[in-house]
Amino acid sequence: MRGPFTLSEIAAQLGGRVAGEADRKVVQVGSLAHATEEQVVFIAHRRYLGELAQTRAGAVVLSPEFETCTTLPRIVTDDPYLYFARLARLLNPVPICEPGVDAAARVHPSASVAASARIEIGATVGRNARIGERSWVGAGSYVGAGAQLGEDCRLYPNAVVYDGCVIGARTVLHAGAVVGADGFGYAKDGERWNAIPQIGRVVLGNDVDVGANTTIDRGTVDDTVIEDGVKLDDQIHVAHNVRIGANTAIAACTGIAGSTVIGRNCEIGGAAMIRGHIRIADGTRISPATAITHSLRAGTYTGIFPFDDHVSWRSNAAVVRQLAKLLDRVRALEKRLLEKESNRD
Amino acid sequence: MRGPFTLSEIAAQLGGRVAGEADRKVVQVGSLAHATEEQVVFIAHRRYLGELAQTRAGAVVLSPEFETCTTLPRIVTDDPYLYFARLARLLNPVPICEPGVDAAARVHPSASVAASARIEIGATVGRNARIGERSWVGAGSYVGAGAQLGEDCRLYPNAVVYDGCVIGARTVLHAGAVVGADGFGYAKDGERWNAIPQIGRVVLGNDVDVGANTTIDRGTVDDTVIEDGVKLDDQIHVAHNVRIGANTAIAACTGIAGSTVIGRNCEIGGAAMIRGHIRIADGTRISPATAITHSLRAGTYTGIFPFDDHVSWRSNAAVVRQLAKLLDRVRALEKRLLEKESNRD
Amino acid sequence: MRGPFTLSEIAAQLGGRVAGEADRKVVQVGSLAHATEEQVVFIAHRRYLGELAQTRAGAVVLSPEFETCTTLPRIVTDDPYLYFARLARLLNPVPICEPGVDAAARVHPSASVAASARIEIGATVGRNARIGERSWVGAGSYVGAGAQLGEDCRLYPNAVVYDGCVIGARTVLHAGAVVGADGFGYAKDGERWNAIPQIGRVVLGNDVDVGANTTIDRGTVDDTVIEDGVKLDDQIHVAHNVRIGANTAIAACTGIAGSTVIGRNCEIGGAAMIRGHIRIADGTRISPATAITHSLRAGTYTGIFPFDDHVSWRSNAAVVRQLAKLLDRVRALEKRLLEKESNRD
Repeated sequence: MRGPFTLSEIAAQLGGRVAGEADRKVVQVGSLAHATEEQVVFIAHRRYLGELAQTRAGAVVLSPEFETCTTLPRIVTDDPYLYFARLARLLNPVPICEPGVDAAARVHPSASVAASARIEIGATVGRNARIGERSWVGAGSYVGAGAQLGEDCRLYPNAVVYDGCVIGARTVLHAGAVVGADGFGYAKDGERWNAIPQIGRVVLGNDVDVGANTTIDRGTVDDTVIEDGVKLDDQIHVAHNVRIGANTAIAACTGIAGSTVIGRNCEIGGAAMIRGHIRIADGTRISPATAITHSLRAGTYTGIFPFDDHVSWRSNAAVVRQLAKLLDRVRALEKRLLEKESNRD
Repeated sequence: MRGPFTLSEIAAQLGGRVAGEADRKVVQVGSLAHATEEQVVFIAHRRYLGELAQTRAGAVVLSPEFETCTTLPRIVTDDPYLYFARLARLLNPVPICEPGVDAAARVHPSASVAASARIEIGATVGRNARIGERSWVGAGSYVGAGAQLGEDCRLYPNAVVYDGCVIGARTVLHAGAVVGADGFGYAKDGERWNAIPQIGRVVLGNDVDVGANTTIDRGTVDDTVIEDGVKLDDQIHVAHNVRIGANTAIAACTGIAGSTVIGRNCEIGGAAMIRGHIRIADGTRISPATAITHSLRAGTYTGIFPFDDHVSWRSNAAVVRQLAKLLDRVRALEKRLLEKESNRD
Repeated sequence: MRGPFTLSEIAAQLGGRVAGEADRKVVQVGSLAHATEEQVVFIAHRRYLGELAQTRAGAVVLSPEFETCTTLPRIVTDDPYLYFARLARLLNPVPICEPGVDAAARVHPSASVAASARIEIGATVGRNARIGERSWVGAGSYVGAGAQLGEDCRLYPNAVVYDGCVIGARTVLHAGAVVGADGFGYAKDGERWNAIPQIGRVVLGNDVDVGANTTIDRGTVDDTVIEDGVKLDDQIHVAHNVRIGANTAIAACTGIAGSTVIGRNCEIGGAAMIRGHIRIADGTRISPATAITHSLRAGTYTGIFPFDDHVSWRSNAAVVRQLAKLLDRVRALEKRLLEKESNRD
């Protein structure tokens, strides 16, 4: 945490217009409910005006429409949420990577590790691997033979990058993320499965975030590719030969099967399941808990089975298994009624 | 494994009434199907009476209603399942933590590690971290700067606790569990995503169990909180700013989105998906594979799409996409029929 | 990568009939889209004939029906996909395990480690554990007390095998896989949960593949068993006391609840959810994203809620909650219409 900063100093760095006491000092961001006088909060929706009236925060970031809703010192900006993101980063800069290789790390003599990089206890940097400037290889993490990390990357503890995978600049792997495990490819050989060697790589672009325990498998022959700016939450699975376009964001627990191509700027909800060998257009939105079974044009798609109290669910769900027959019965009724109506004429 | 114990010795420690040979010695618990004469089994449901008749176990724990169903030495108790849990623990005590810091662990000089604690190979205890009495930090696990572990905790190998997180007494993290990775919070900045620093913590209470590869993200500003006695199975995801009430149990593969509040004493089935910013009342039960999309009062809720053989599914599922039209057609039929009936009068 | 090999040399080792230039040398497998002249591709379906016409590959593996579709040097075989798997393995042999115990590994004096085995940095081999010939215990991985690994196994970095678990020959655990964590078993003790000690083991057969971050819990009393040749993708969860029959393959993100028995030669799609205490017959196929709630005879089963554009979904999903009533309305219509038809006669 840096600071304190006055609101004037903040506006000088981040823009926005100060209203009220411009010398108000803040040291940290806070929430409406729990902020103290030294903290700054934001409000981006009318539904929080009640909480704003109660907050003990020292200052608030808000849009012009709410400017008169409070007498707190404030910064007025058109996009308070984005402003808050920048302000939080100003007050909480990315930690400096203290360079050095821990005595209990294992760096192969042929590996190239930037002098400004940090390799922590128990970490491995394999044969011919490359670690860029200021990159941080956390405790127990693993960078395999021939793998490359760009500048300013961070591998949190116990993240694993298999041999030959390539990671761009400013990319983050949270703890337990696994990049480059073998794709799930087998040919049937009688009753047995014959594994197909997975010789492709995983290529991650710049500014990619990979959540904790997320897995991204290496390609069978060609690569699995995650483009710049993609954000992956925790426990996502990306199968072999998938491509994810730039700036697409995917929430936790989603699974993407092999060879599917997802466009740029998509937003995919948590626990979505996307089948293999399909194409999702740029800008597509997929709701949480939705199974996508064919290619999609841009749009918003949903497929959640509506829950209910258990007893109601049981009686409704029983009808699901008779829907085709139910449709036939309605058709038959329509026909019979039409016949009656015709006869009458 | 301790023992052997006679049934009398067991009843002296755990209660219950011995029937039959009170001096029968047992050394271990067993299953009805595979127990040997030195093992004790339990029966809690009529459907296992057939297996009871066949068992080679040396003794059985059962309720009064089944007391006469066997001539085996037996302990009679009102809750045989709970009794069995206690008996299994008596025969299989929690392993003693042998104190000591492995030479290949990395404990920061400013950290406070109880003399009775154990820190294994490759483990990290960060700056100003605190490890309580008899707590066991397994091989390759990580306790970040300023993080705290209470007494009698156990981190199995490669569990990760990020900086600043707080863990109560007798709490267990299984292998690969990650506590405190960044929550998934970004503000749109043109086409790019601007990460919001996640400065909240994760706070785990006492007697919490966290399953293997489960992830619990740190809060954005306020904390993510897991109260006392919560039991989380493997591969669960808990997003930032979630609160889970005391003694709630959640089965594997469930995902809980951000800022949702789950009450006390809830039971949530596996692979459930719970959306963000909702409230689940105390004592709620949620079935497996159910997507919960709004707040819940206490009750039992289900939302499983019923499976079928593939061909039947295909014909029924096609009708799902016409349900609104089908309802309209039924309404139209009702209207037409009503008109006919009225005309007739 | 070995080689180069001429097509004749390949056919001498793997069978098949060479057509065209038998001396064509190849060094690697490739994809139709990106192969170079030194690479060999395969084609197994008519839909790729267009790509075959465009490919720059040096040779192609194909079935007799496509033999005349190209003038490239080719190997003709009845099962090109299986042939390609074998050829890819020929060109990409499993890496040799260089024996040795890293100075920063921790092998208990009582453990038995084959001289040809490899134990990497930060790895643990516990008391009385056994590591078979040529088995490879990767960086940061863990083999608990009394656990056993057969010959030619590989544990990728940070894989964890808990105490007492048994693993057959040629079995692979990808990074972050956890074998033997406690099953999720508790008895209610008032409001609290009383943990039932999980004293069973996990027993993995020969030639089992376990994907990255997959979890297989130990049994409560008896063992959790995965038979020979089972292939598990990433992020699968297998609960306590499950048994999976030989050569069954399961795609990523699937969850299997406790005590369920899955037969041999099953194929289970990704993100399927299988409830506990049921039996799945040999040879059963389960579609992705399908929740299986009762025992199955052999067949193909599906239960995917069909997605739609969000607006259509909303109107159709609303009717799901009225299905039982809708059925009643249709029945009532049928009855009224029948009455009218009867009256008329």
